Amino acid sequence: MSTSPKSSLVPAQGDVPAKKGPESPPAEFQPAERAAVYRAIHSRRDIRHFRPEPIPDDALARIIRAAHHGPSVGFMQPWDFILIRDEEIRQQVQGLFHQERQAAACFFDEKRRAHYLSLKLEGILEAPVNLCVTCDPTRGEVVLGRNAAPETDVYSTCCAVQNLWLAARSEGIGMGWVSILKLPQLRKILGIPPHIIPVAYLCLGYPVSFEDRPLLETVGWRERLPLEQLLHFDGWEPGASADGDWEGFQEALRSTSETAG
Amino acid sequence: MSTSPKSSLVPAQGDVPAKKGPESPPAEFQPAERAAVYRAIHSRRDIRHFRPEPIPDDALARIIRAAHHGPSVGFMQPWDFILIRDEEIRQQVQGLFHQERQAAACFFDEKRRAHYLSLKLEGILEAPVNLCVTCDPTRGEVVLGRNAAPETDVYSTCCAVQNLWLAARSEGIGMGWVSILKLPQLRKILGIPPHIIPVAYLCLGYPVSFEDRPLLETVGWRERLPLEQLLHFDGWEPGASADGDWEGFQEALRSTSETAG
Repeated sequence: MSTSPKSSLVPAQGDVPAKKGPESPPAEFQPAERAAVYRAIHSRRDIRHFRPEPIPDDALARIIRAAHHGPSVGFMQPWDFILIRDEEIRQQVQGLFHQERQAAACFFDEKRRAHYLSLKLEGILEAPVNLCVTCDPTRGEVVLGRNAAPETDVYSTCCAVQNLWLAARSEGIGMGWVSILKLPQLRKILGIPPHIIPVAYLCLGYPVSFEDRPLLETVGWRERLPLEQLLHFDGWEPGASADGDWEGFQEALRSTSETAG
Repeated sequence: MSTSPKSSLVPAQGDVPAKKGPESPPAEFQPAERAAVYRAIHSRRDIRHFRPEPIPDDALARIIRAAHHGPSVGFMQPWDFILIRDEEIRQQVQGLFHQERQAAACFFDEKRRAHYLSLKLEGILEAPVNLCVTCDPTRGEVVLGRNAAPETDVYSTCCAVQNLWLAARSEGIGMGWVSILKLPQLRKILGIPPHIIPVAYLCLGYPVSFEDRPLLETVGWRERLPLEQLLHFDGWEPGASADGDWEGFQEALRSTSETAG
């Protein structure tokens, strides 16, 4: 293997116009393709209302494969996929959800509690397919890049889930992430070994609709934070940037805010 | 607020053809749009070789906004973005990387160690922009959906990173995730408060190329696992599925494997 792989990494640009400059990187996306990726990102929603139609097997296969092509630390691919259609199992998971939802309600003040309990937060039985995505921390003996931060195995699994979410959106399939579940009990229902981490319990199906905004924003639970408040430059503290060359970026951010959807 | 929001969630289908059936869900993506989303997913790479051109401010703004539109538990939006161009800071981070890389090398056997040390695993100084994406576990007093699994705040942050990664790919911008960094030291360099979790340290810039396959696969470090081995049906154990109605899916998976890229 070469230790200076730069030359060998120059692509064979057979089907790509040999243009130069930052506006035309190799294998570039056309504007309509780029717009489609942003459309998936901005119109993805956490779905809790599903229509009863089944998911065609080929669409389901494509979105699972999209997850498998997620990034992973040291190419570890720590994920497994438990696909669930069995009604009885889904009923057990829903029972777990109801228990946990009641418990969680205790932590809200009275006004929020009523609001919380009025929200529909899962579609476990309505969705034709449930999917548990897990992480196996033992996969791969010594994993490149995981020594400093072992938790990157779970990070990789989450990135895979987001791939799946966006692929599903592009298929017109909605996905809802049910996080109101206790993991030890979920492990028991699904027979998951103790060393395997159930990262995400997902509901998949055709949604009643893809709304313009997140449900929790629409119902007034919580607002989208202004992105400007979440930015830091060259360090956490304001003024950390010595040369202050971030003004152009900040201006660009303001001018893109209306088109963001 | 309505406790049966189904009726109010039916979309105003002004610009959407009023078709029915699973093949035509509301606000569906056109085949070319769907293909673009899959193209981004399958051609995304962890980039370590960058060209020197700067990232235009508007493209940078769009990909950061894509991250901000990631999913989050209870709409918590726990992320912050530290954008870094400062050369001195990046040199400090690279120093941290070199230290950690040497330390991690000790855990490989002799043959793997030489291979490991020959790999280029970061582009901290070459990439025109570095970005640290953090998670603030204290954001939001009581977060809906986070009682059973508090770590979902970090999960949300990872999903935001994957949004950013795919948006960058669609812009022709490469991203590399540097996980070979010790977090306490990284916090110190960037002035990050102790309660904030630096989830991802990312390098962003135009890549020398987007390769067909992950680098670690190309150089023979590790192979892509057969997806079939990672699937479970209605439970972890083989044979957990009582009705065995997963054959169609498994067949569909085999027939999509060649087109997956």
